[in-house]
Amino acid sequence: MDVESHLRSFTRRDWEEPIDDGPVRFAMVGLGWWTREMAIPAVADSDYCETTVIVSRSKEKAVESTALADSIEHGLSGEEYHAGVAADAYDAVYVCTPNAAHLEYVRTAAELGKGVLCEKPMEASVERAREVAAACDDADVPDMVGYRMQTEPAVRRAKELIEAGVVGDPVCVHGHMSQRLPEIFPDTGHWRYRRELSGPGATIMDIGLYPLNTARFLLDADPVAVQGATHSSHDAFEDVPDEYAAFTLQFPDHVYAACTASQNAYRSSHLKVVGTAGEVTIEPAFFDRQDRRLTLRSGGTTVDHAFEQVDQMREECDYLGNFLLTGRKPSPDTEHGLVDVETMAAIYDAADRGSVVTLE
Amino acid sequence: MDVESHLRSFTRRDWEEPIDDGPVRFAMVGLGWWTREMAIPAVADSDYCETTVIVSRSKEKAVESTALADSIEHGLSGEEYHAGVAADAYDAVYVCTPNAAHLEYVRTAAELGKGVLCEKPMEASVERAREVAAACDDADVPDMVGYRMQTEPAVRRAKELIEAGVVGDPVCVHGHMSQRLPEIFPDTGHWRYRRELSGPGATIMDIGLYPLNTARFLLDADPVAVQGATHSSHDAFEDVPDEYAAFTLQFPDHVYAACTASQNAYRSSHLKVVGTAGEVTIEPAFFDRQDRRLTLRSGGTTVDHAFEQVDQMREECDYLGNFLLTGRKPSPDTEHGLVDVETMAAIYDAADRGSVVTLE
Repeated sequence: MDVESHLRSFTRRDWEEPIDDGPVRFAMVGLGWWTREMAIPAVADSDYCETTVIVSRSKEKAVESTALADSIEHGLSGEEYHAGVAADAYDAVYVCTPNAAHLEYVRTAAELGKGVLCEKPMEASVERAREVAAACDDADVPDMVGYRMQTEPAVRRAKELIEAGVVGDPVCVHGHMSQRLPEIFPDTGHWRYRRELSGPGATIMDIGLYPLNTARFLLDADPVAVQGATHSSHDAFEDVPDEYAAFTLQFPDHVYAACTASQNAYRSSHLKVVGTAGEVTIEPAFFDRQDRRLTLRSGGTTVDHAFEQVDQMREECDYLGNFLLTGRKPSPDTEHGLVDVETMAAIYDAADRGSVVTLE
Repeated sequence: MDVESHLRSFTRRDWEEPIDDGPVRFAMVGLGWWTREMAIPAVADSDYCETTVIVSRSKEKAVESTALADSIEHGLSGEEYHAGVAADAYDAVYVCTPNAAHLEYVRTAAELGKGVLCEKPMEASVERAREVAAACDDADVPDMVGYRMQTEPAVRRAKELIEAGVVGDPVCVHGHMSQRLPEIFPDTGHWRYRRELSGPGATIMDIGLYPLNTARFLLDADPVAVQGATHSSHDAFEDVPDEYAAFTLQFPDHVYAACTASQNAYRSSHLKVVGTAGEVTIEPAFFDRQDRRLTLRSGGTTVDHAFEQVDQMREECDYLGNFLLTGRKPSPDTEHGLVDVETMAAIYDAADRGSVVTLE
């Protein structure tokens, strides 16, 4: 592989195909800060999508929020959405609620025959995540889980470099993600601190998932065994075990991924894959609206690549939009997302037991 | 702390005190490539040390090798060394044999009342490492284990930054070290591949020890529990379990260190400490004769510090020499080194069992 020319067109959309019509019209479900400040603006800028409907538990909030973009035609309550109100006004549904509410909104979208973009993690438990995947499968709708990293150019270029053998056979992965959630959400009643809405934990489920899923994507493999360790001490994390977390993923061929995550540490993220013949590092790796940097070392040379940053959420929406408009099945789909929920459940279990947990 | 001025005098020897006499005269035990190509030249350049005696199993090789430095007066066989031949010609002994031979040479040095510099890991088993520490303690000789990282300026500056609170409270550590040992030592009979000389493994005992010991040094703490995973597939590693290794160290206050190491991967090393208020990264971290780089992020600022590199082995010898000439007890001593051997034994045990092993 000619690494230099490969990296020159860094932000190319290797997935993009020409389209005739469009845009894909989205119903946005859940009006938290991510939907309001990230998703709706990204879709407004996108090539292939627009927001036409927003859905909130509160009808009043939904109606008020129709002002968030010119394209928005309807503000619906949850009940109206589930009843199929204004279903002709959208083609796909973006579900960005607390984890434990994904299932009900995905199920309705599937029943209505809409495309599904479900935020990560897919649901709060393995059982419910299975139902999310089954709902999409039964209705045969196009489905995707919102892993921004899989459409991030730095990650896609890293994957291509790995697949071209530039670092040899991958041997190990290091990944980390941390932020100070109590500064972002000081209210200890916030849903991420609550098991019934978040799932088994606040950290691995929300941000430990980034090194986990990105390692899976880069290695094109799923973990076969996990180890874990978790601890909470701050009041906000009283209901969840993992203010601090460390976990080891064992991939096929004994490729180990050493991961850490914390919802109460300095904002930091990195991902590194070391192989037999080189290594590729992305740092910072995972946060949106942050300059990313890719460093490739192979043989005796180092390529430290700064590049034009993309709006990750726009990239993700355009990716899905392009797939839907060209009639292609998008990935990562809900079957892929289910593996993460299963893996995270195994990590929490391993941390509880203090022993290795194997995955099927 | 004024970080900029702290980093300006990067290679300062914070440990150095004025001396009147010297140099410390060393007997070098074991004539492998490290002694010949690294230790003897470093001592020849040093401010406080000189090599006056060399010791090898082969008298012939010892005598031949007296040509390695002008200061060398005697080439002794192991038997001669143990019998105290030419004991007046040296003040301290550097033991750089295969791991399982450290004890016998340290014991003689201690009995002769000489200072001890024992290479890492201290011995091949916990029992023998205990005997190394006991021999030094019983004879009340100054003792040190050859952890080059603890006298490496990048690591010392990082430790000072951490102790000054620049990254807040440490939350987690990432560390990695890998090289392709079968390219360095193609002979599968090389001692590092053999349990009876290396100890329980080839990778953690030799290079996994770098992130382990450097994390201990930076955090000024010892692990209280460990997890591990190891695997070997290449022929050279038939007798040892850890061609590839991953391990998690739990330090007090649930600070987790996620570590990986391999004796059969691309040459790579890094160390990162993430805290509540910042992070410090050294990359590359561990190999000698390699440019090191320290990156500090704290608050919203990043300091990426390139600096004058030192000869690590010379720095280590000068450190010990300065301590001996000023009558101070050096560290890391053999009690400190024993903790690593105990921790590594626990990691191998944890990997065997697939469960957490706690340390006292």
